[in-house]
Amino acid sequence: MRLASFSLSGRRAYGIVAGDGLVDLARRLGAGAPDLRAAIAGGAFPAMQSLANEPADVKMAEVVLDLPIPAPAKIICIGRNYKAHVAEGNLKLPEKPSVFLRTLESFSPPGGALVRPRISEKFDYEGELAVVIGTPGRHIPKEEALEHVFGYTCLNDGSIRDYQFTHSLTVGKNFFHSGSIGPWIVTADEIPDPTELVLGTRLNGAELQHTRTDDLIFDIPTIISYISDFIPLDAGDIIATGTPEGVGFARKPPLWMKAGDEIEVEISGIGVLRNFVVDE
Amino acid sequence: MRLASFSLSGRRAYGIVAGDGLVDLARRLGAGAPDLRAAIAGGAFPAMQSLANEPADVKMAEVVLDLPIPAPAKIICIGRNYKAHVAEGNLKLPEKPSVFLRTLESFSPPGGALVRPRISEKFDYEGELAVVIGTPGRHIPKEEALEHVFGYTCLNDGSIRDYQFTHSLTVGKNFFHSGSIGPWIVTADEIPDPTELVLGTRLNGAELQHTRTDDLIFDIPTIISYISDFIPLDAGDIIATGTPEGVGFARKPPLWMKAGDEIEVEISGIGVLRNFVVDE
Repeated sequence: MRLASFSLSGRRAYGIVAGDGLVDLARRLGAGAPDLRAAIAGGAFPAMQSLANEPADVKMAEVVLDLPIPAPAKIICIGRNYKAHVAEGNLKLPEKPSVFLRTLESFSPPGGALVRPRISEKFDYEGELAVVIGTPGRHIPKEEALEHVFGYTCLNDGSIRDYQFTHSLTVGKNFFHSGSIGPWIVTADEIPDPTELVLGTRLNGAELQHTRTDDLIFDIPTIISYISDFIPLDAGDIIATGTPEGVGFARKPPLWMKAGDEIEVEISGIGVLRNFVVDE
Repeated sequence: MRLASFSLSGRRAYGIVAGDGLVDLARRLGAGAPDLRAAIAGGAFPAMQSLANEPADVKMAEVVLDLPIPAPAKIICIGRNYKAHVAEGNLKLPEKPSVFLRTLESFSPPGGALVRPRISEKFDYEGELAVVIGTPGRHIPKEEALEHVFGYTCLNDGSIRDYQFTHSLTVGKNFFHSGSIGPWIVTADEIPDPTELVLGTRLNGAELQHTRTDDLIFDIPTIISYISDFIPLDAGDIIATGTPEGVGFARKPPLWMKAGDEIEVEISGIGVLRNFVVDE
């Protein structure tokens, strides 16, 4: 199943992507599951599955997509997690997963504008595979980690590079609407092995990042286990797994996103996260 | 006014601290202001003030205090912000405010247990003055910054030092229930100058940190202005302003918190944030 959150005539909802429409789960599952995070936490997956073949209630063209989980408890990102990306940036190979947090407000919805801030021109893309947690847990063993995954989505970990490198990682990664997540979550039953995906990032149609997801330094089970050792993982939590080589700051000359650009992150079996760039 | 969030017989509420009781604002202000963050965002300060001299609706002993803002949009922390603390830790004097984020789940409520994790013994306290934002804003000029402050509270930026220094700052600062915030917010009208406060941290009654809050490297207006340049500040956002000298890791021998300890952060004009330590 592909599950999206959206607004329809001002009402916030979520549903199953069905062709060029959506089965409105917010309406069909009722008040017990008012949003996708609550539905996941409440174990609504079987109820969703039973509605997966229903005709669409609403056309995709009538809705405005929201972040797939509109208000996750936390969005945890892993940096420097592809060897070729560490090499291109002259970064230090991490001995432990390199963890940082992003605020919800640092993300624009799928289809929405990424904002190049007025105080920097060094606005860079980072295409990533993101994990959405289903079953909560603490101290999750690696070998059980994938059982805690509800699904997968695309993430653009958009970064303001001068602030990242000369101020602090947290600042460079948390500019308002500098990244995006979506367009929807593909449930884990459709992606039994998340190392077999192909990730590509395109700027104005030109592919700038291309990788198989089996090239991670710390794989998804390791990341989930590591994070759950310091903080419990909750339903709807998002984990970004790091970006491969091909980012803008490492190019010669550097390549920065600017107003009018279209930036796409595509992952096989998931879909295309498409955003456009505006000036603040 | 001192404003606290609390649970009463399972119902979540908030109110004005009045002697040894509370005026229940959740009940008196009604559905338009269901929690303190919503009340601040909705401009309920004058309505609160008009109830400030009412008799208490409930005794403090009957409630369980919650974090003053139970679900802020973000909790932004400033590290290395007192010169003597930078010196004691052999840390680098920051050229820009050193920013990191903490998740909500990294904080235990006032009076609650701080959890020493099973994977580390290096559990340290950090007493801090925290700012609660009232009026939202972006690109806030320094000279207008204090107008955006709703109030002040105490914060314990509890840290797992081996993870902070050998894994990543974000991990060391985000262990489950390793810090605390509270016990309540004192509104800014009662603290016209936040540089004139005295902050002390006591472990089992012995004072280990003691400072005036005029010793910050980056003062509160500078911090607010700096953060608002990368992300909008919202009503209820919390900003921790950094800890002074006297932390446990810099002592010889180092001093770590252990099960059974009582840790208190007291700020003049605000109150005492008291927690006890348990093993995970």
